[in-house]
Amino acid sequence: MPSAESVLFMFGLCAMVAEAMTAALAAGRRKMDWFGVAMLGSVTALGGGSVRDMLLGHYPLLWVKYPSLLLLTGGAALLTIALAHVVHHFHLLFLVLDAIGLVVFTIIGCSVAIEMNLPLIVIVVSGMITGCVGGVLRDILCNEVPLLFRAELYASVSLVTGALYVAGTYYRLGDVLVLLVSLAVGLTFRLLAIRYKWEMPKFIYERGDPH
Amino acid sequence: MPSAESVLFMFGLCAMVAEAMTAALAAGRRKMDWFGVAMLGSVTALGGGSVRDMLLGHYPLLWVKYPSLLLLTGGAALLTIALAHVVHHFHLLFLVLDAIGLVVFTIIGCSVAIEMNLPLIVIVVSGMITGCVGGVLRDILCNEVPLLFRAELYASVSLVTGALYVAGTYYRLGDVLVLLVSLAVGLTFRLLAIRYKWEMPKFIYERGDPH
Amino acid sequence: MPSAESVLFMFGLCAMVAEAMTAALAAGRRKMDWFGVAMLGSVTALGGGSVRDMLLGHYPLLWVKYPSLLLLTGGAALLTIALAHVVHHFHLLFLVLDAIGLVVFTIIGCSVAIEMNLPLIVIVVSGMITGCVGGVLRDILCNEVPLLFRAELYASVSLVTGALYVAGTYYRLGDVLVLLVSLAVGLTFRLLAIRYKWEMPKFIYERGDPH
Repeated sequence: MPSAESVLFMFGLCAMVAEAMTAALAAGRRKMDWFGVAMLGSVTALGGGSVRDMLLGHYPLLWVKYPSLLLLTGGAALLTIALAHVVHHFHLLFLVLDAIGLVVFTIIGCSVAIEMNLPLIVIVVSGMITGCVGGVLRDILCNEVPLLFRAELYASVSLVTGALYVAGTYYRLGDVLVLLVSLAVGLTFRLLAIRYKWEMPKFIYERGDPH
Repeated sequence: MPSAESVLFMFGLCAMVAEAMTAALAAGRRKMDWFGVAMLGSVTALGGGSVRDMLLGHYPLLWVKYPSLLLLTGGAALLTIALAHVVHHFHLLFLVLDAIGLVVFTIIGCSVAIEMNLPLIVIVVSGMITGCVGGVLRDILCNEVPLLFRAELYASVSLVTGALYVAGTYYRLGDVLVLLVSLAVGLTFRLLAIRYKWEMPKFIYERGDPH
Repeated sequence: MPSAESVLFMFGLCAMVAEAMTAALAAGRRKMDWFGVAMLGSVTALGGGSVRDMLLGHYPLLWVKYPSLLLLTGGAALLTIALAHVVHHFHLLFLVLDAIGLVVFTIIGCSVAIEMNLPLIVIVVSGMITGCVGGVLRDILCNEVPLLFRAELYASVSLVTGALYVAGTYYRLGDVLVLLVSLAVGLTFRLLAIRYKWEMPKFIYERGDPH
């Protein structure tokens, strides 16, 4: 049976590829050039973990240690250009890959903070930063209000996944079990949220700027 | 008589709450969901200090050390949703709270850099980063050109406050005295600037992009 | 004969001034106030190196060590306001200065990573971050999709310059020689790209958001 770490690592690579490919589509909607597509892919796939590591002072960053990740994510983004004309046939696959990315990155972020012996809340927040910030960077670079703040249960999925993973780890329920359960619950939650268009209530405030 | 440190800490908490609440109103203008409101509140309230600490290599970050600050700021932002229908009655209170936030964060930023024995200019800039960057992050995440660069004497207030605080500390005029004088002058300056619509001259350049 | 280091340092100062001045023009197009102009100038000129240093954990940052760089870049941006009415006469000069900035920053970024004994890909990426991120920050703060991702051979010039510099250093072809050749090739490449409007192919994807 494979160790939890190697399972997480494999899922992590898939998640990076998935994030880079969805970022490439966003770049295509903004008519970026090929180089821009590759860069946006790498920033989106590796940005969440990089911001987390800078915030926590956790050096060296993953892509500094394993620079081939830059080629993997940039390459996945470029590959998306070639596949663009068939990508819409794989709409569902992309949604699932994106959901896997969110959940896996969240768990990786939690496990980094657990290793650093950080407080409970910081562990969960570390998971959320790792899971969500890549997409926020993508949206900022595409000059949009981050989807994260506006739509769907994205951050909530990250929070629930992280809380489950932390609780399971705390009660020592077995690494692989905890990993698979958090993954399954987070993924199901995310896909149900998309399928049934679950949303958080919105806060609408229409008075003028108080300044 | 309380120590300068404990006074600054108390004011700092108030400032964080104030920044989180004004950020929540900005989130409401962008129709963000509740989770987005809480996140934007925390990022705005804690972002200036976090960017400063990453730039200066000053670890651990405040919210990593005191994770309850995440709950405080996120909670304050959520509370604002419940209070939104009466918030406009407290327009003036918000302006004062926001001004307190700017001035207090500036002083905290200066005192962190002083403790690190950094050069004079860096101390003042550390204060400005702490005071102003939270609002810049809020505006970027709301997809606006940061107010900081466009309007009112905001950065100038931070500069004056920081310079006063640094000068007073340098000449050892007594911690509490220096703190209170910088606070009072900065706050007065900011409120006068709002009241009389003081503005820096603007640079308007209407030729095309040189590229 | 001057050392490669002192030549690079001199070019680096010119590049910072150039970047601050082009940022000031961007600020003027957004009608920022004078303080905003100075801040945008400093952020653009020093931002690429600062982001690189935070990503690589390379402390202290350059402007913390040499705080007069803050005055130099902020001052250069303010000077641009005074010169704005004649700036269009120096259109070509600005293009050349901006190209020098790109190429010099790239080489500085590579040499920092070489000193840190980082892997080859990271060295080249460190050069690209140093050369390109200042302009990305400028565009984000001006609320635009970064030019980098959309237009011209900007990142490509940075990549080629960095690759040349790294190859030359690896084969120990002599510090000053390698420096001058990378500079000359990068600069020529950039100016030819502007003159003949060379562009990377763009990726245009017009289907809706997959979400």
